[in-house]
Amino acid sequence: MLASQSSPSATSVNLHPFDPITPEEIQLAVRILEAAFPGVPLRYKRIDLQEPIKKDVIAYLEAERLREPLPQRPPRLLFSYFHRLDSGVFHKALLNADSKAVIHIKELPAHVQGPIDVDEVTEIEALCMRHPAVLAEIEKLKLPPGMTVCNDPWMYGSDSPNETRRLFQCFMYMVAADHPENNHYSLPCKFSPVFDAITRELVRMDYLPGGADTKVTETQPWKPVKTVQYAHDLLDEPLRKDLKPYIVQQPEGASFSVDGNFVYWQKWRFRVGFNNREGLVLYNITYDNRNVFYRLSVSEMTVPYGDPRAPYHRKQAFDVGDVGFGLNANQLTLGCDCLGHIKYFDGYRTDSKGNPVHLKNIICMHEQDNGLQHKHTNYRSGAATVVRNRQLVLQMICTVANYEYIFAYIFDQAANVELEVRATGILSTVPFDNENGETVAWGTNVGPGVMAPFHQHMFSLRIDPAIDGFKNTVYYEDSVPLPEDEKNPYLVGYTTEQTVIRKSGSANTDINRHRVFKIRNDNIINPVTYKPVAYKLQTAPSQMLLLSKNAMGYRRAEFASNPIWVTKYNDDELYAAGEFTNQSRQAEGVETWVQRDDPTENEDVVLWHTFGLTHNPRVEDFPVMPMERISVMLKPDGFFTKNPALDVPPSTQSFNKSTLHPEPAPVAACCSSSGGASTKAKLYKRIE
Amino acid sequence: MLASQSSPSATSVNLHPFDPITPEEIQLAVRILEAAFPGVPLRYKRIDLQEPIKKDVIAYLEAERLREPLPQRPPRLLFSYFHRLDSGVFHKALLNADSKAVIHIKELPAHVQGPIDVDEVTEIEALCMRHPAVLAEIEKLKLPPGMTVCNDPWMYGSDSPNETRRLFQCFMYMVAADHPENNHYSLPCKFSPVFDAITRELVRMDYLPGGADTKVTETQPWKPVKTVQYAHDLLDEPLRKDLKPYIVQQPEGASFSVDGNFVYWQKWRFRVGFNNREGLVLYNITYDNRNVFYRLSVSEMTVPYGDPRAPYHRKQAFDVGDVGFGLNANQLTLGCDCLGHIKYFDGYRTDSKGNPVHLKNIICMHEQDNGLQHKHTNYRSGAATVVRNRQLVLQMICTVANYEYIFAYIFDQAANVELEVRATGILSTVPFDNENGETVAWGTNVGPGVMAPFHQHMFSLRIDPAIDGFKNTVYYEDSVPLPEDEKNPYLVGYTTEQTVIRKSGSANTDINRHRVFKIRNDNIINPVTYKPVAYKLQTAPSQMLLLSKNAMGYRRAEFASNPIWVTKYNDDELYAAGEFTNQSRQAEGVETWVQRDDPTENEDVVLWHTFGLTHNPRVEDFPVMPMERISVMLKPDGFFTKNPALDVPPSTQSFNKSTLHPEPAPVAACCSSSGGASTKAKLYKRIE
Repeated sequence: MLASQSSPSATSVNLHPFDPITPEEIQLAVRILEAAFPGVPLRYKRIDLQEPIKKDVIAYLEAERLREPLPQRPPRLLFSYFHRLDSGVFHKALLNADSKAVIHIKELPAHVQGPIDVDEVTEIEALCMRHPAVLAEIEKLKLPPGMTVCNDPWMYGSDSPNETRRLFQCFMYMVAADHPENNHYSLPCKFSPVFDAITRELVRMDYLPGGADTKVTETQPWKPVKTVQYAHDLLDEPLRKDLKPYIVQQPEGASFSVDGNFVYWQKWRFRVGFNNREGLVLYNITYDNRNVFYRLSVSEMTVPYGDPRAPYHRKQAFDVGDVGFGLNANQLTLGCDCLGHIKYFDGYRTDSKGNPVHLKNIICMHEQDNGLQHKHTNYRSGAATVVRNRQLVLQMICTVANYEYIFAYIFDQAANVELEVRATGILSTVPFDNENGETVAWGTNVGPGVMAPFHQHMFSLRIDPAIDGFKNTVYYEDSVPLPEDEKNPYLVGYTTEQTVIRKSGSANTDINRHRVFKIRNDNIINPVTYKPVAYKLQTAPSQMLLLSKNAMGYRRAEFASNPIWVTKYNDDELYAAGEFTNQSRQAEGVETWVQRDDPTENEDVVLWHTFGLTHNPRVEDFPVMPMERISVMLKPDGFFTKNPALDVPPSTQSFNKSTLHPEPAPVAACCSSSGGASTKAKLYKRIE
Repeated sequence: MLASQSSPSATSVNLHPFDPITPEEIQLAVRILEAAFPGVPLRYKRIDLQEPIKKDVIAYLEAERLREPLPQRPPRLLFSYFHRLDSGVFHKALLNADSKAVIHIKELPAHVQGPIDVDEVTEIEALCMRHPAVLAEIEKLKLPPGMTVCNDPWMYGSDSPNETRRLFQCFMYMVAADHPENNHYSLPCKFSPVFDAITRELVRMDYLPGGADTKVTETQPWKPVKTVQYAHDLLDEPLRKDLKPYIVQQPEGASFSVDGNFVYWQKWRFRVGFNNREGLVLYNITYDNRNVFYRLSVSEMTVPYGDPRAPYHRKQAFDVGDVGFGLNANQLTLGCDCLGHIKYFDGYRTDSKGNPVHLKNIICMHEQDNGLQHKHTNYRSGAATVVRNRQLVLQMICTVANYEYIFAYIFDQAANVELEVRATGILSTVPFDNENGETVAWGTNVGPGVMAPFHQHMFSLRIDPAIDGFKNTVYYEDSVPLPEDEKNPYLVGYTTEQTVIRKSGSANTDINRHRVFKIRNDNIINPVTYKPVAYKLQTAPSQMLLLSKNAMGYRRAEFASNPIWVTKYNDDELYAAGEFTNQSRQAEGVETWVQRDDPTENEDVVLWHTFGLTHNPRVEDFPVMPMERISVMLKPDGFFTKNPALDVPPSTQSFNKSTLHPEPAPVAACCSSSGGASTKAKLYKRIE
């Protein structure tokens, strides 16, 4: 369409292939697309960086690593999802930002739904609130003065393979306090309209069960119950007064250096990537100038709910594919989300008109102290070597309507990389008339008239390894007793069994065999162990999908049916449940790609790890959930010739400047603030 | 023997039943025992606090909790293990410190070996070094001038049920540098004498295999290889220069209050206990004045090794029962072992003559920041509630010859208690002539001439619960799909299945069913959930013993054959592998007690959790191991009526005082310190 131009645009000439999209690139993409569709109004859903072709980029990265003259930078590629507003047809375009050219533009099939975007949610939310049918239901609640109603539009996890409409299910809540942090999730309504996002029509008014069965009724006047609030100034109880400040100081500044999105810290080097879909991505991770990982990302996450009743059976968010962790990333605030000396990274998205929107402070980076890294005392001499565990944390916090995820990649000085996920935020709740002690088998009562159904959070960590090079092999190693024969006369011997994943496929974790997954480079032998250099994946063994294999939701999220998948690298295979998850009929992701039976031994491979939480809510998870933590680690295993953190300086008082608690300690304060026992007597009913 | 006296001794009148033993009590015990054995020389192995009788102490604790007049304090009980030096017979005495009276003194059977004590190890070590047979072997090594030999005496994991001698196996190492932190474990010798600790005779000179098989040879002149050192001033490489200080300041002091061994922090109250065997013990843990746990401790730990060859098959340390984490606890140093504002606790032991020995700073306590506790952003208003996760850490670090364990109980503001164990220190190594690329199937080459065999670390956490009272029930809950019937038409439903442990017994973890263990109080119903109040145990599912069921080591450590055990409480049942583990023939612990088939529903129950590490060493674990972390949590689950941390004040910059990384960041430093690639080329052989 547009004629290719030979010189890169001035705006992108200094960009690295892995730098996030810039506002100028968003504007450029819009200009290219407007030129491609002259006179046609377009509605933009995404404009973002297209992952560069790996084989093109490796030569560039290796020249950087080896301090050799750089070859020509691979072109900056962009993509866009957009609708033609004249025809409504959904398109995907691939663009070359350097040559300012269209590479291709594709019309997508009618059943493909693009992800949700920010403007769309705002529009649906407003549409819902002014629809006469919704207003009529609200009227029937006969709410007291001052109370209002709001709604959360939800992705419509389609239950029919024939559905081609773009649908939203709006869950409705009563708003008891005119306060920016009122917890409407405490007061769910029993009606829930479904809208067509294209025609803007009300498709159906769903009614939600009020009790433990599937029975629904017409909307009744609301029986007042108290909102369970979380905002500090809406609490009945006073705040704790005995928490003293805890201040992290780095008087000489941080130990990291930053140049744009390039980070250097304690022998680690990597590039901080960001895109609207996955949010934080890490590229080209090296340690002491040796390649370790080409790319790390959380490629997908699905949350199927266990309440068997309509319409809840369609509640199955894909928070990466349906919405995007990047789009939902919180704009972080100094002194609130991170402690210490903080560096922030920004990002950009497009709005529906193609205007760049600045996403400020969506990634934070800081150091933290994580206790001891190693210690040994020679008991003869009493001499001790003590080294603390300094870490570098890259953190992103995503709000997906009611819920929050905190993702942190944590680097340490012993060459470990950890992905820590914290789940917090507010449970997705449903109405439940439970005042007479009713309970359900698939949820927990979390307040008056409100129940939180069981659900799972299933994450896919995509590991694109580069263990001392780009051809790697994945295998697993089990610990098993030696045979009870003459070579094991005392019956104490045990050994390991290795299983190499020679073709693309899947594997299970196995605690009872202490199964460990490793990524090795068969071409590089460690001179001490005499075995190939390797990293191991310390998995988070988790219950896989509880959905029936015959459920539509299972087919949409098959990546979550196995904890381990290995594929041969292909450009464009980035997302475990496929590119389009919103209202998907079935996944077209990792479960499909493994079926190619590609050779994966000493090849460019990708390791996918599914892990998660079966989250049967506690009442303590309401009204806002104390974080639930889950963690996965990548650790060198025969990659070095000894502990790589030996050269970390010792832990000393002159460096750490700790303080001693004064003796004798004051104790008066501790006993006066009590009285808990009598309070509890009111709350807890003792069975006689 | 001694007449009972009616008034408590002046020294113990102000002590709490859970306070650790005092030096005065050690001296008192010696006086009582000397009076009981007039004229008989005694050798003391232990003098320590005897756990008070639980039923006596509960009334006292409840009066404390409810601020009621205190009943008479239960008597301070002491015990001692000692030998009569005239007969050599091993005894256990139980004493009443208040009445200064003997309760009973028992002679123990000849096969019972008491634990190792500090003086004994020192004596055996010295005995070994001056024994002519050992000196003759050392002579044969023909070591260069300046090199010496040392030894680590090991508990002798007996392989015969008929052995009644008290034996030590001394593992010998060459010492390359006259330095207090020389790493002798890098240069193991191939001879290993066995001594009788009573007769002081050399029982046998064992020779260790030199290769991958069982072949042994006479001691040969040493072929020089380089020691892999860990001490900072013995390293070849320079220390890192780019680590900037990270200082924790608490300008208003700590948020905790301390009165003796009583601690109050953020609604938590507990007593810090200490004994020679388990080290750090926590007693009478309450939250907001509600009972939660009566006692928490690491009751045992065993380390069986997987090298099938003699004499390694006997390497099976029980670091609690054979030695004692309390005895081995490091004396901690301000600014080295902990960061921030630190409170230390002390302890005492006896020496072999009955003199109290002060163990200064063996437990440290401090607060730490652990990132975010909870966060929610209302996406409509952008208003966010952010609360950080302040924690209180009680830490003990134990050195058991080559190895270190770091134990930390971590309390948080959401009423969680975590036990975090870090394994570090130096691998137990064996000689291995591996210069030609030999490897073994049960170990890892970690340096020239040195191999580290596979092994397991199996811990037993003993949980004596008091969930809102002292009668509790343990059950497990699995998450399972609902039947595929008309009540589950969309095949998405799932529910939980509860299995109550009604009689003492064991259970398995089960990741595939998301099995969760809970402790509930059937007598107290939560007014929101309508279910009994409960805490859950977030287990660390681990591979259990790899030893054959027919191995003697298996019978000695049967607690490590199942991850979960439930017993009805009995005084004196504190240690998972029984009271006497040193050279034990079989355990007399939890595997025995469960066989009583005691009722355990709504009873005073104890929950034992076995967890651990199958540790197949990485070369990166040498010469000192980057900590390997394993963690178990106890979390409220329907214990409260909502998130108990709601009243924690918000995270604000005025409180946290974070600093912003300056922009643009300096980058020059990051690129000049490189050159890794060329270094690696020397180390790593590329296969063409």
